[in-house]
Amino acid sequence: MTYCVGLLLNEGIVLLSDTRTNAGLDNIAVYRKTFLFEEPGERVVAILTAGSLSVTQTAMALLQDAIEDPDGEHHNSIMKAPSMLKVAEIVGNTLASVRQDIDAKMNAAKVSTSASLIVAGQRRGGAMRMFLIYPEGNFIEATQDTPYLQIGEHKYGKPILDRVVTMETTLHDAQKAVLLSMDSTLRSNLSVGMPLDLTVIENDACRATLQRRIEAGDDAFREMSEAWSQALRDGFSRIEI
Amino acid sequence: MTYCVGLLLNEGIVLLSDTRTNAGLDNIAVYRKTFLFEEPGERVVAILTAGSLSVTQTAMALLQDAIEDPDGEHHNSIMKAPSMLKVAEIVGNTLASVRQDIDAKMNAAKVSTSASLIVAGQRRGGAMRMFLIYPEGNFIEATQDTPYLQIGEHKYGKPILDRVVTMETTLHDAQKAVLLSMDSTLRSNLSVGMPLDLTVIENDACRATLQRRIEAGDDAFREMSEAWSQALRDGFSRIEI
Repeated sequence: MTYCVGLLLNEGIVLLSDTRTNAGLDNIAVYRKTFLFEEPGERVVAILTAGSLSVTQTAMALLQDAIEDPDGEHHNSIMKAPSMLKVAEIVGNTLASVRQDIDAKMNAAKVSTSASLIVAGQRRGGAMRMFLIYPEGNFIEATQDTPYLQIGEHKYGKPILDRVVTMETTLHDAQKAVLLSMDSTLRSNLSVGMPLDLTVIENDACRATLQRRIEAGDDAFREMSEAWSQALRDGFSRIEI
Repeated sequence: MTYCVGLLLNEGIVLLSDTRTNAGLDNIAVYRKTFLFEEPGERVVAILTAGSLSVTQTAMALLQDAIEDPDGEHHNSIMKAPSMLKVAEIVGNTLASVRQDIDAKMNAAKVSTSASLIVAGQRRGGAMRMFLIYPEGNFIEATQDTPYLQIGEHKYGKPILDRVVTMETTLHDAQKAVLLSMDSTLRSNLSVGMPLDLTVIENDACRATLQRRIEAGDDAFREMSEAWSQALRDGFSRIEI
């Protein structure tokens, strides 16, 4: 499993992913699930991945190949695409095609593969946009009404987002919100695990303005987690029924 | 869908269920999911139900029939069973047999049915016990380490239980905890809905000491829900990162 969350706010984009992958409970490993493609000042595209590792790794490798292909006509390069919508289409088509290939191989074993992605970014002169790409390659977009997207184990961390996140949330508060959302998920699902990758993309910067890996023993994260538990217990004890 | 939760505490048992059933999003109805069997002072058994309504209704009807059968040898009456463990076995066997019957009928349509139950109670001279009965009829029991059980849509309401409930929690706080756990679930899953049925069974009373239906417009519940949202937002704004 996995938990990735992205917020699309007036001030910018905030993304957080865990790094745990597992094939059964007895085979776990750490893999980065946040991928950043940037030409600073011109274009930034961040992709968060959930689902079958063989699908997401192959899809990311193909996207990278298309960017680097010197002879290509750039029609599949997300660094040349004329809009974020076109980026989402390229990523969606790549994901769908990889998934179909691998699914065909898996069919004999009656096993199915799946993966979904969050794609967020901005190109110079365009607006920030954020998409959730489904395993079939179709996608939805974050909006004013629902300025966040989640993939993977999304339920435990949703109540806090519902209560505190709007388009007007500051980037500082947004980092707190995604970290607390992740904290609730980490406590309840063993297949979501540290370290975490936090990315912030300020509006119109067209580059990642913050990239931070939060390791398992991180003091600040632990203190925040404990303070939140205490705040919940304090709030609970003050409620009248 | 459904959300039912039960707490087994030193002071007693606290149970809460919603009442929404649905066959698709366009066909919803209100059905009680908490069933109480009691001989006050002697024995109390409460059963909470989740899953296919045709399975749970039939299972509850068969359990009631076995209690009322004047010629029966009581070997299937949960009101005559010599222990709560035996009650759980009878309920488990009844559920498994009903589910198999209905599943066989559904097989032709390639549809599967499922249901799970929480069974909690006490007989005079025995200890309070609480079980989660799986669709196959096997069961697990609440313990000191994990004094709560959930069936149905359990994820949204789990973080608050994890943080505030222990065996030492008072019955007053326990009612607050299950209501807030339900509140988080109601906000996030449309297939869980008001009204709610709250039941409290005090230790050694061997009867339901509180049975309360909380209707959709209930002022106290709404105020508690709003106070909790405010407490979360206040707690959030005080956390430092």
